[in-house]
Amino acid sequence: MNKQLKLAKRPVGMPTADTWVLEESPIPTIKEGEFLLRQDYISLDPAMRGWMNDAKSYIPPVQIGEVMRAGSIGEVIESKHPNFKVGDSVTGWGGVQQYIATDGKGFYTVDTKLAPAPMYIGTLGMPGMTAYFGILEVGKIKEGDVVLVSGAAGAVGSVVGQIAKIKGCTVVGTAGGPEKCKYVTEELGFDACIDYKNENVYKELKKAAPKGIDVYFDNVGGEILDVALAQIRPKARIVICGAISQYNNKTAIKGPSNYLSLLVNRATMTGMVVMDYAKDYGTAAQNMGMWMAQGKLKSKEDIYTGIDNFYQTFQRLFNGKKMGKLVLKISE
Amino acid sequence: MNKQLKLAKRPVGMPTADTWVLEESPIPTIKEGEFLLRQDYISLDPAMRGWMNDAKSYIPPVQIGEVMRAGSIGEVIESKHPNFKVGDSVTGWGGVQQYIATDGKGFYTVDTKLAPAPMYIGTLGMPGMTAYFGILEVGKIKEGDVVLVSGAAGAVGSVVGQIAKIKGCTVVGTAGGPEKCKYVTEELGFDACIDYKNENVYKELKKAAPKGIDVYFDNVGGEILDVALAQIRPKARIVICGAISQYNNKTAIKGPSNYLSLLVNRATMTGMVVMDYAKDYGTAAQNMGMWMAQGKLKSKEDIYTGIDNFYQTFQRLFNGKKMGKLVLKISE
Repeated sequence: MNKQLKLAKRPVGMPTADTWVLEESPIPTIKEGEFLLRQDYISLDPAMRGWMNDAKSYIPPVQIGEVMRAGSIGEVIESKHPNFKVGDSVTGWGGVQQYIATDGKGFYTVDTKLAPAPMYIGTLGMPGMTAYFGILEVGKIKEGDVVLVSGAAGAVGSVVGQIAKIKGCTVVGTAGGPEKCKYVTEELGFDACIDYKNENVYKELKKAAPKGIDVYFDNVGGEILDVALAQIRPKARIVICGAISQYNNKTAIKGPSNYLSLLVNRATMTGMVVMDYAKDYGTAAQNMGMWMAQGKLKSKEDIYTGIDNFYQTFQRLFNGKKMGKLVLKISE
Repeated sequence: MNKQLKLAKRPVGMPTADTWVLEESPIPTIKEGEFLLRQDYISLDPAMRGWMNDAKSYIPPVQIGEVMRAGSIGEVIESKHPNFKVGDSVTGWGGVQQYIATDGKGFYTVDTKLAPAPMYIGTLGMPGMTAYFGILEVGKIKEGDVVLVSGAAGAVGSVVGQIAKIKGCTVVGTAGGPEKCKYVTEELGFDACIDYKNENVYKELKKAAPKGIDVYFDNVGGEILDVALAQIRPKARIVICGAISQYNNKTAIKGPSNYLSLLVNRATMTGMVVMDYAKDYGTAAQNMGMWMAQGKLKSKEDIYTGIDNFYQTFQRLFNGKKMGKLVLKISE
């Protein structure tokens, strides 16, 4: 049988267990030009929360009754498709379901001998691509820049900071709790990490970056964005990648009160969506693979098991109980 | 005697009459390498409010006891300077005072036969330059763009919108009251103007720009910025030039709640300060002069008289009782 997690209702604020419903149905059969993918791992990302809102965005919202959207990786177990053969490892937007019959649109083959499967939905997948293009193309970092990254222990932030280090920047992260901060500085090599749950971010940032920051890569929004704006240098670039602190708001999002710092500093705040860079994913994966081989880029996946445990695992995105890229193994 | 308006205290919220003090002193004498300028007109600008705050900004704040900073234009009446001779019309940062002895740094000569003196502190001065570089260099308008301009009847906004029309854009303005809106559409040639004091800006903008906006030139901040963010198109550019609705706040500035629209639309919000473009002022003045000669660019100065009336005139920046560039004639 095929277990599929479907959106049952639109959440207000933090999703609850009954936001989704897990259904069983027969494993789908494939038509000519399709293949059957056994999905082994799905990616859990903060962006999922946004996809559940009935609002105009960069992709259509998941509809009630539809399988929950998610990045996935698995193995082709049956094929009537010329380009995908049985045994291929394939990644794409498979959704939270154990099997999918697809014509392959939006899916591509990867080599799980070069890197473990979960990494292809993490550092070598969307989160890694987001980090790569966000910090290089939007943040436009150059050697000597002072870079601040929020969500520094997360799937995107951890890669952003490491790339900035590779490029010769001074890098300060923010993360929740001493354990994550230790990981960020000691394992990932950031110059400093501010524990926003236990420290005064404004004061600690003044200490860590006394001359201010040139680039802020924002995954969280809220107070940290305001603190960053207060400490940007002339011509600073703020990359708006996400705002996890605001995704479950029941009222209006908190806008950055300090946005006029953009004016004073002739600075820029730019939003990004990784899909825009699809044509260059190959180059990015090649560079990141090289940095990994050289030991300059580390990837950590935090893997949980069981499609039945989707909700508890999803909650970890927002309660902070995870380290690195959150992945759920859904094959049995 | 020389009447000088000096900052008496730092205002909280809207300045009051006793924020400044008017003093009289003898007309200054000049040293070798200086000239004496009789200041005829001063420019009144919303930015003055920011210069009064004791905060880090793009220029140092005016100190208590200092002459209030203002752009000015006047005539050289005595000179020991090789480059400025008696009778020259000279503009610069002369401040709110009737006479100034200066070495000429930051001042330059203009030809008041080509355009009337007040225009050199308006459309051919800082406000005009702000409009020119803001919409062209930061807003990066191109033919066919839909452009929204707030403060459309003001010194900067009126020029922004006219330049956008010259460049083949569809231009929508916002202004306070039907009289200003009529001026904006009928005299300045904007395609539409929304009276934010009497109309629902969100609904009217939907009507005026049903497909959304490519560029928003923001002079006001607050609610209109949020409405604009809600209606930007992919790759939109928001130029942050000012936030007059927030300058007299006694509490924190209202940040734009809808800023995540930048992410969804891969859009950019960029702050600007006109001084950065100083080396290209000449080209800009040449182009704007040409557009004026061709009847494509109109300039309106709203001129009041008497340095004694500074405070009442200053209030017009914020109560809306002015049309076009606010100027005070201070020579007697």
